[in-house]
Amino acid sequence: MLQQPLKAMVFDAYGTLFDVHSVVALCEQLWPGKGAALSQLWRAKQLEYTWQRSLMRRYEDFARVTEAALRYACAALGLRLDEDRRRRLIDAYLGLATFSEVGNALAELKSMKLKLAILSNGSPAMLRPVVANAGLRGLIGTVISVDRRKIYKPAPAVYRLALQRLRVPKKAIGFVSSNCWDACGAKSFGFPTFWINRTGAPVDELGAAPDHVIASLAELPALIRQPGS
Amino acid sequence: MLQQPLKAMVFDAYGTLFDVHSVVALCEQLWPGKGAALSQLWRAKQLEYTWQRSLMRRYEDFARVTEAALRYACAALGLRLDEDRRRRLIDAYLGLATFSEVGNALAELKSMKLKLAILSNGSPAMLRPVVANAGLRGLIGTVISVDRRKIYKPAPAVYRLALQRLRVPKKAIGFVSSNCWDACGAKSFGFPTFWINRTGAPVDELGAAPDHVIASLAELPALIRQPGS
Repeated sequence: MLQQPLKAMVFDAYGTLFDVHSVVALCEQLWPGKGAALSQLWRAKQLEYTWQRSLMRRYEDFARVTEAALRYACAALGLRLDEDRRRRLIDAYLGLATFSEVGNALAELKSMKLKLAILSNGSPAMLRPVVANAGLRGLIGTVISVDRRKIYKPAPAVYRLALQRLRVPKKAIGFVSSNCWDACGAKSFGFPTFWINRTGAPVDELGAAPDHVIASLAELPALIRQPGS
Repeated sequence: MLQQPLKAMVFDAYGTLFDVHSVVALCEQLWPGKGAALSQLWRAKQLEYTWQRSLMRRYEDFARVTEAALRYACAALGLRLDEDRRRRLIDAYLGLATFSEVGNALAELKSMKLKLAILSNGSPAMLRPVVANAGLRGLIGTVISVDRRKIYKPAPAVYRLALQRLRVPKKAIGFVSSNCWDACGAKSFGFPTFWINRTGAPVDELGAAPDHVIASLAELPALIRQPGS
């Protein structure tokens, strides 16, 4: 239940607004039969490195972490990563499409006078092209990268960035992510949270569960209009 | 190359000294055909939760994190976790055997006048019985849990605990782990490090690589005796 009317919605980027399916498909195209294993290990290491580097206090931006994770995953699976393949895979991150419902859902939320923002692990140089290429620049007013704080989600300092940039009270900022641990981190910080559970996964047991669990962004506008739901 | 003679050796516990094979076997016994998938997801979530909770500043001890990860893994795989199974799986952590080379290697290191210690994510209540049951109390003089700092590896505050407890200079403490990211965290803190690479995995790309990569603890005594190696 929403305790007060929301004034802003903050979205995670990769997997929430942007579908990484095209990267998975490119992995399979480059190494037939190995695409699923590669993209799974690549993603797992990408996230692990963000957490481990944050705890080690050895922040490196998300573009470099993403490349390091790709090199590790290819080495672990015995796949030869040459310069051409490396570039194609990294560039694929810059041209991701949004999930099909995203454009309409964001337009409807914007028509409800909500400020819309992205808060992402992505580096500014990764976020600018993907937002522009997907045609979201007219809908998303604010794009915030963790890079400003040199630490990754789910550190409270990251969620605080949204508060500082949007100048809206904490309880009036709805946070939306398809990563359950990210939604838990935002909830722990104090945002009303919406977990987009695209795969029917259980809720992560992190001591701070998301307020709302929905299957896609298409459910958001109606949910926000009816605070008693 | 070791820059100065080591005066103490600090070991990670799970996977480094203690073999978690018996837990994997019990998973398979309780859910035939699902044991590998369960123990893999359980372990992955156990580690994720330590990193995420550390970043969220929501520390909970390792016994509770381990149980939460087990509940998540069973829910995700559709396995019914009743009280009896839960207790058997958690209790299995208290009676783990050491890898076959551990007893001899530790005895030889001890005969070289090195102080031996454990530095583990495990809670004190988990570490006490497993060290005693494995007969290591006469070999390992100091058992240190991250619980004292309420944060998990690879945070520098954890490695600093070993420095404080052993009262030996940083460069005279050799740190040994089978988890590459743990060895990288210790290296980043400043310890000479030994990664036990039991599976032939690539080195993690975290900006601080282990000094030595060996296949088992059996290689340690000779390596330490010959600083030029």
